Amino acid sequence: MTEPTFYAVGLGAMGIGVARLLSDRGWCGIGATSHQVGQALAEIVPGSAPGARIRADLDDGAVADLCVIATASTVEQVHDQVLWAIGRGMNVLSSAEQLVYPWRTAADRAEEIHRAAVDAGVSVLGTGINPGFVMDVLPVMAGLAAVDVRRVHARRVNDLSEFGPTVLASFGIGLSEHEFHQAVAAGNVSGHVGFVESVHLLADAFGWVVDRVQEQMTPIIATEQRRAGTQVVTPGMVVGANQSIAAYTAGVCEPVITLEHPQQIDPGAAGIATGDFLEIEADPRISLQIVPEITGGIGTMAVMTNMADALVRSSPGLVTMLDFVPVLSRRRNALP
Amino acid sequence: MTEPTFYAVGLGAMGIGVARLLSDRGWCGIGATSHQVGQALAEIVPGSAPGARIRADLDDGAVADLCVIATASTVEQVHDQVLWAIGRGMNVLSSAEQLVYPWRTAADRAEEIHRAAVDAGVSVLGTGINPGFVMDVLPVMAGLAAVDVRRVHARRVNDLSEFGPTVLASFGIGLSEHEFHQAVAAGNVSGHVGFVESVHLLADAFGWVVDRVQEQMTPIIATEQRRAGTQVVTPGMVVGANQSIAAYTAGVCEPVITLEHPQQIDPGAAGIATGDFLEIEADPRISLQIVPEITGGIGTMAVMTNMADALVRSSPGLVTMLDFVPVLSRRRNALP
Repeated sequence: MTEPTFYAVGLGAMGIGVARLLSDRGWCGIGATSHQVGQALAEIVPGSAPGARIRADLDDGAVADLCVIATASTVEQVHDQVLWAIGRGMNVLSSAEQLVYPWRTAADRAEEIHRAAVDAGVSVLGTGINPGFVMDVLPVMAGLAAVDVRRVHARRVNDLSEFGPTVLASFGIGLSEHEFHQAVAAGNVSGHVGFVESVHLLADAFGWVVDRVQEQMTPIIATEQRRAGTQVVTPGMVVGANQSIAAYTAGVCEPVITLEHPQQIDPGAAGIATGDFLEIEADPRISLQIVPEITGGIGTMAVMTNMADALVRSSPGLVTMLDFVPVLSRRRNALP
Repeated sequence: MTEPTFYAVGLGAMGIGVARLLSDRGWCGIGATSHQVGQALAEIVPGSAPGARIRADLDDGAVADLCVIATASTVEQVHDQVLWAIGRGMNVLSSAEQLVYPWRTAADRAEEIHRAAVDAGVSVLGTGINPGFVMDVLPVMAGLAAVDVRRVHARRVNDLSEFGPTVLASFGIGLSEHEFHQAVAAGNVSGHVGFVESVHLLADAFGWVVDRVQEQMTPIIATEQRRAGTQVVTPGMVVGANQSIAAYTAGVCEPVITLEHPQQIDPGAAGIATGDFLEIEADPRISLQIVPEITGGIGTMAVMTNMADALVRSSPGLVTMLDFVPVLSRRRNALP
């Protein structure tokens, strides 16, 4: 059996992490498209094919079993890269949050990608720690041990300190409260991407028809000095964002799904314990917690890497994590 | 689409529970073999086919999509019932603990059942809350969010009070310590069945070659009065059993898997909090808890019922829960 091969699109922290883990498991990197143009891939990802150099453009001669795309968050942003990889006969594994469950939020693009993948006989999966695991797949799996699931509440309290400047800026870390609201309005502070996708994954798994969602994002203001790497944030400034989403079914006041996700740097400085907390109202009720939270960076790399073998073996098309776990609802069957 | 049908073998508390839940979900009971001979099935399981009566023997004219077998714990005990159901062209869903993962502990019988099922084009699955979920499938799923999984420790502290006299007797509840040890030696107190199966499921999922297991069972002695239903146990007598298993790989002193399972009646009387506790040594380390524990009775009914649709759609053969979740190890691929 020859070793499986992969091509990497995007070698930021996430792309490098996944590529190295795949390489550790016997996958061979045969090429990459990223900003480190001209560098030997093997210098960044040990074990890669000798001679493979990082390119600025997508290599129209690339041949690999898998393409790892770790460049952006939305389906629109990764669409061209995904179609290029499909066109080259590669399965696609992406960290794009919206691609985790695009069937309800980007249905036309999802359909387009699905058809191209079916025609090419390859599979496409978006996944990560969240969306992709903590607030959606984990409740679905835990729900396997209950009947009459009526409501899901998930709260993920995590620490952003490990992330670099790009991620911290996307949460408005270090801004004043006023600047934070301006940056949100201007689209420069996006915070967590994937809430709506997690909601629809859960709803389809449990058979709920979601009628309306309500999202909120408010700044978390430091009451004490906090640090992340070399960045120091003084009291009164923004150290994170508190995001939440509530999903409703028709005619019911109480939300069927609520997800809460306060993300901040250095929560320990304020005595805030991190963790993943899950309440499933069902018979029996399930109260699950993971303390501390599953770390975002390595967590996403792990979920992606761990899905690689299963993805390559799966049926062609745009698949989601729900295709890999036992799902209870017949509603899910309405999707391709 | 006509409604799917099932035949029930064994209508004790578990068999009735699963049958009622299946019936709630649109499955139609068309026959049953159990001790309530002559009774109309619909009296016990509302929604069953009119005219279906409970029989003492296995009905050689039975035709159904699924056979639910809830009669016993070992593969040897359910073997004839499983082969009968396969021979009638039915998929099989069983609560037999050993059937959850029989490939290592009852390999010949597993192979025999697998071949018969493949020939008949049906699937056979053993599952439940434990084995089948809490101490094996849940760690495998949680492990999806980590790399370099080195060790699994699971502890399930549960309450037996809800169970009837047969289950309580199998734990030696109410015996003296001396009587408990005699009953264990005589094979009359078996306690939890399925530890070895959970160990092998975990080992195969994570790619560990288990070389040796060490099991222990000691009585839990009441220091205060405890109650379960009408049964009262006085201080000094047995209120449960503390079971554990440790699994080792060759040449390594520390166990790769440890499972601890103290089961007792009325733990609240002694101030003991129940729960499912899971530690996965990996990168990142995952500390997960479900408090209180997922209740055994309804938990097993839920897992079984929730797997019914996926089972009927799965590839023919003797399948396990590992066939329904993304599994990381290539070792698993050595099994049929």
